[in-house]
Amino acid sequence: MGTFQEATALVAQGDGEYAAVLDAQWSVGTRLHGGYLLAVLGRAACASAGGNGHPHVTAVSASFIEPPEPGDAVARVETLRVGRSVAQVRTALVQEGRTRVEAHVTLGLLDDSDPWWTASEPVELPPEQDCVLAPADAPGAGFVVPLMDVVEERIDPAHLAFVFGNPSGRGVIASWQRLADGSDWDPLSLLVALDPVPPVSYDLGVPGWVPTIQLTAYVRRLPAPGPVRVRLSATDVGGERMDEVAHVWDAKGRLVAQATQLAAVRLPA
Amino acid sequence: MGTFQEATALVAQGDGEYAAVLDAQWSVGTRLHGGYLLAVLGRAACASAGGNGHPHVTAVSASFIEPPEPGDAVARVETLRVGRSVAQVRTALVQEGRTRVEAHVTLGLLDDSDPWWTASEPVELPPEQDCVLAPADAPGAGFVVPLMDVVEERIDPAHLAFVFGNPSGRGVIASWQRLADGSDWDPLSLLVALDPVPPVSYDLGVPGWVPTIQLTAYVRRLPAPGPVRVRLSATDVGGERMDEVAHVWDAKGRLVAQATQLAAVRLPA
Repeated sequence: MGTFQEATALVAQGDGEYAAVLDAQWSVGTRLHGGYLLAVLGRAACASAGGNGHPHVTAVSASFIEPPEPGDAVARVETLRVGRSVAQVRTALVQEGRTRVEAHVTLGLLDDSDPWWTASEPVELPPEQDCVLAPADAPGAGFVVPLMDVVEERIDPAHLAFVFGNPSGRGVIASWQRLADGSDWDPLSLLVALDPVPPVSYDLGVPGWVPTIQLTAYVRRLPAPGPVRVRLSATDVGGERMDEVAHVWDAKGRLVAQATQLAAVRLPA
Repeated sequence: MGTFQEATALVAQGDGEYAAVLDAQWSVGTRLHGGYLLAVLGRAACASAGGNGHPHVTAVSASFIEPPEPGDAVARVETLRVGRSVAQVRTALVQEGRTRVEAHVTLGLLDDSDPWWTASEPVELPPEQDCVLAPADAPGAGFVVPLMDVVEERIDPAHLAFVFGNPSGRGVIASWQRLADGSDWDPLSLLVALDPVPPVSYDLGVPGWVPTIQLTAYVRRLPAPGPVRVRLSATDVGGERMDEVAHVWDAKGRLVAQATQLAAVRLPA
């Protein structure tokens, strides 16, 4: 089992191009995980434009155009602007000459200072050991989630009623998350934590695949070592679309990252 | 005073290029309003790729690179993918050969049906006539907001304590909004409503300019005729960055649009 660092490693090819090998381990069913793909693009952005005091990904907004396959891919970076406190780039993940994901990435300098002001209280969760480790091969799921062997996700048992066919309908799933390779969270790996599995539609009685159309993530500060708490919720579902809002708090209870995504969902008639 | 339609009008130049005249009326201080700029790009996206059943903007994610000036500009559209239910394009607002704003736009087909499920309750507001009309030239503001002559914004008086030097510190500002030209809200003009003035930092005791770095907007359904209710809130402020989350409900109380932005903010020492 490779580490997160290995699964997102790049080889510079010059001219803002980086060779990547997309790792099937970071998949949900047969599809590569969206947050993992953004981490690859984020790493390319940092490699290309992260000098001059902008070492960290602070914002990523991505359009998912066509699912990439595991294996060789190219990450392309085009610099839009390098300013004093912000660098802005456009990135594309390309396979067989076709852009599969295109994302704007904003780079800057994060620190681990506490918020000046916050309205964000970490989600209340039972202790980590009292939450339920999500398996890669859940009985009855109908597909495997290899991602669950590299991301240790412990879900609040109060949010697991859907497993027994009795979804709560509240539209919230919260969990503890750690990287299985033992490394601490960083701004790139937080992009994985911001796109949790399963989608919150499971808690609304709508199981099945929910492809992301657009996802925007903000990384707000460097996370403290240790597990993160993740809360995923929906605001509104209709017209075959669902939004999912994710908040991630570090071991000190501070908001370290947030994301919103728009996904396609097949609703019961 | 031009209408919203006139202020966002385009002339096709071929090859996915559209000539626009950016209207200084849609400004905050001397800067063109971010939501207005996204409406111009959204209109270009619709003109270029809105055929074949994708007439509406459903998602816009923008990087603000360099403030554009009022006057002539070019909106460029590059199609990334046209699918069955979604078209995805990249747009750029260009002046003097430099990209000022670049945005991915997702197009689709919206309707005015009620949500299948929602957790979204419209913000509670006093009746429209009991809220305070935001003036273009507020005493003591230090700058004019021409936008307030084309967007009628009536702010909840409970959220205006900052005007008297006594900000609530709750990080919420809510208002009623109408277009002053009398036209009803549509998916493009909702992009203006999603970027309200003043920024919520005023309610945190931090007045002044808050430039948007990244903004992502989702339009969820066609709004009913009549005013919209808008709630703007912050989640976390620190490291010279603030997020602002906007929700917009139509006259029937349904969520019609939502947005998140990351902005630069100068915090007191």
